[in-house]
Amino acid sequence: MSTHGWHADASEALRVSEGFRLADVDPHGTPGYDGDKLRGHQDLATRVHDLDELQERLWAASRAGKTQDAVLLVLQAMDSAGKGGIVRHVVGGVDPQGIELAAFKAPTEEERAQDFLWRVEKRLPSPGYIGVFDRSHYEDVLIGKVRSLADAAEIERRYDAINEFEARVAASGTRIVKVMLHISPDEQKERLMERLDRPDKHWKYNPGDVDERMLWPAYMDAYQTVFDRTSTDAAPWHVVPANRKWYARLAVQELLLAALQDIDPQWPAADFDVAAEKARLAAS
Amino acid sequence: MSTHGWHADASEALRVSEGFRLADVDPHGTPGYDGDKLRGHQDLATRVHDLDELQERLWAASRAGKTQDAVLLVLQAMDSAGKGGIVRHVVGGVDPQGIELAAFKAPTEEERAQDFLWRVEKRLPSPGYIGVFDRSHYEDVLIGKVRSLADAAEIERRYDAINEFEARVAASGTRIVKVMLHISPDEQKERLMERLDRPDKHWKYNPGDVDERMLWPAYMDAYQTVFDRTSTDAAPWHVVPANRKWYARLAVQELLLAALQDIDPQWPAADFDVAAEKARLAAS
Repeated sequence: MSTHGWHADASEALRVSEGFRLADVDPHGTPGYDGDKLRGHQDLATRVHDLDELQERLWAASRAGKTQDAVLLVLQAMDSAGKGGIVRHVVGGVDPQGIELAAFKAPTEEERAQDFLWRVEKRLPSPGYIGVFDRSHYEDVLIGKVRSLADAAEIERRYDAINEFEARVAASGTRIVKVMLHISPDEQKERLMERLDRPDKHWKYNPGDVDERMLWPAYMDAYQTVFDRTSTDAAPWHVVPANRKWYARLAVQELLLAALQDIDPQWPAADFDVAAEKARLAAS
Repeated sequence: MSTHGWHADASEALRVSEGFRLADVDPHGTPGYDGDKLRGHQDLATRVHDLDELQERLWAASRAGKTQDAVLLVLQAMDSAGKGGIVRHVVGGVDPQGIELAAFKAPTEEERAQDFLWRVEKRLPSPGYIGVFDRSHYEDVLIGKVRSLADAAEIERRYDAINEFEARVAASGTRIVKVMLHISPDEQKERLMERLDRPDKHWKYNPGDVDERMLWPAYMDAYQTVFDRTSTDAAPWHVVPANRKWYARLAVQELLLAALQDIDPQWPAADFDVAAEKARLAAS
């Protein structure tokens, strides 16, 4: 730990445990990390190589049939909190051949005709991959609840269904890393205003973003319920303060590293006679 | 052009035109480029930002319904020529949210029961994306021909089928960038030997690689025929000398840049009232 600015295990420092209250989290904080922004950028750049190597090891072990394990990063947040930046700057540091990315938009008519987990199940990462969900099945208990897109009994049912689903996925060898990027309403206002100020950012702005923003307290309540009901041992939640983008990226990188270190993938041994192949190659 | 080491348009310098002979290409060469390895690494790092921005513009224009265009990079090569390095170091410089990657292995039984283009069609990039084919439908006229996996009449039919298919894809707005990474047999021997020398690379080695290596002249013949038959105006081939990895990466980056510059995607104008939204946001 001495080579970087973390003084605590990010997985522990950010984990949602018994008694967690979202309202107590400072979106401007940097839990577990002592460094400043410059140090944070340096650590991000250094650790990206560790992440890349661990993913390659996982991929190699998977190809050799040595593991069925995978990692699934679930990203949830209010708009402009920085999901895209995590994908670009953290996930983007890993070989694209090892990534499976799924962005979940409002469900299509076909998807709405199925159980809410149907489209999610199809996008689970294959063995050896890091899967990333940009939004997820949690939308069905967040906007689903805030906007009353389903009745109360159905929303209730979903928390348990999610826990059963995630327990099954975890048991199959997929480490589930659930992250809520937490910004303050003021920070969101600044970021949305920047999108309006810059013509090259207009395409990122959607008038619906302000409509959702008006419902901020209801969303925070819905997130609190999500944490109360679905932060399990098999798939715990992590709330990452995200007013400082550099910290949020560093923290998510650290959570992914921890998941891969938990798998501890090893380079597979050769399943052929190395000396014989050397001789055959030399003669070719 | 003064800011980097290219003295010629890579698309032109590397393009397979009438009378092209693969045997005349020096796998150690750096056509169109004057710089050395250090300069090459610098140029790669600089230009990656251009590539990333052009892709984001394409994505934005596509989301706004302003374009149906996409880019498709088709990578073909003998084993160890560096396809993986291209994906990691060139494609990996672009936001993963803008990439659709497809690696084509030996076809499954289900795939073999269909026309050879069936599985390829399904993996064409969506509008706004850079698609990457790691191997492709060309395997069906390369290993397919060398190993006689189909009869001669069927192989003949495929060249025309490929041209018709690619012309249709190009007409729909997808810029097709076809690249053969060209290494020498000696370079391949060194690279395969390195895989055998390093336990952390054993997983990349496959004894079948040496079997294919024994058929080098037959593969070069098959590639020559591919170039003669399928380098069209709609989808020309480029042969990229690849003994120097840094050059091959730089060259493919340049080909992708040219394709995106040809599309010339623009940031879409706001489809909402910017002033009204600013007022609404400020009041929220």
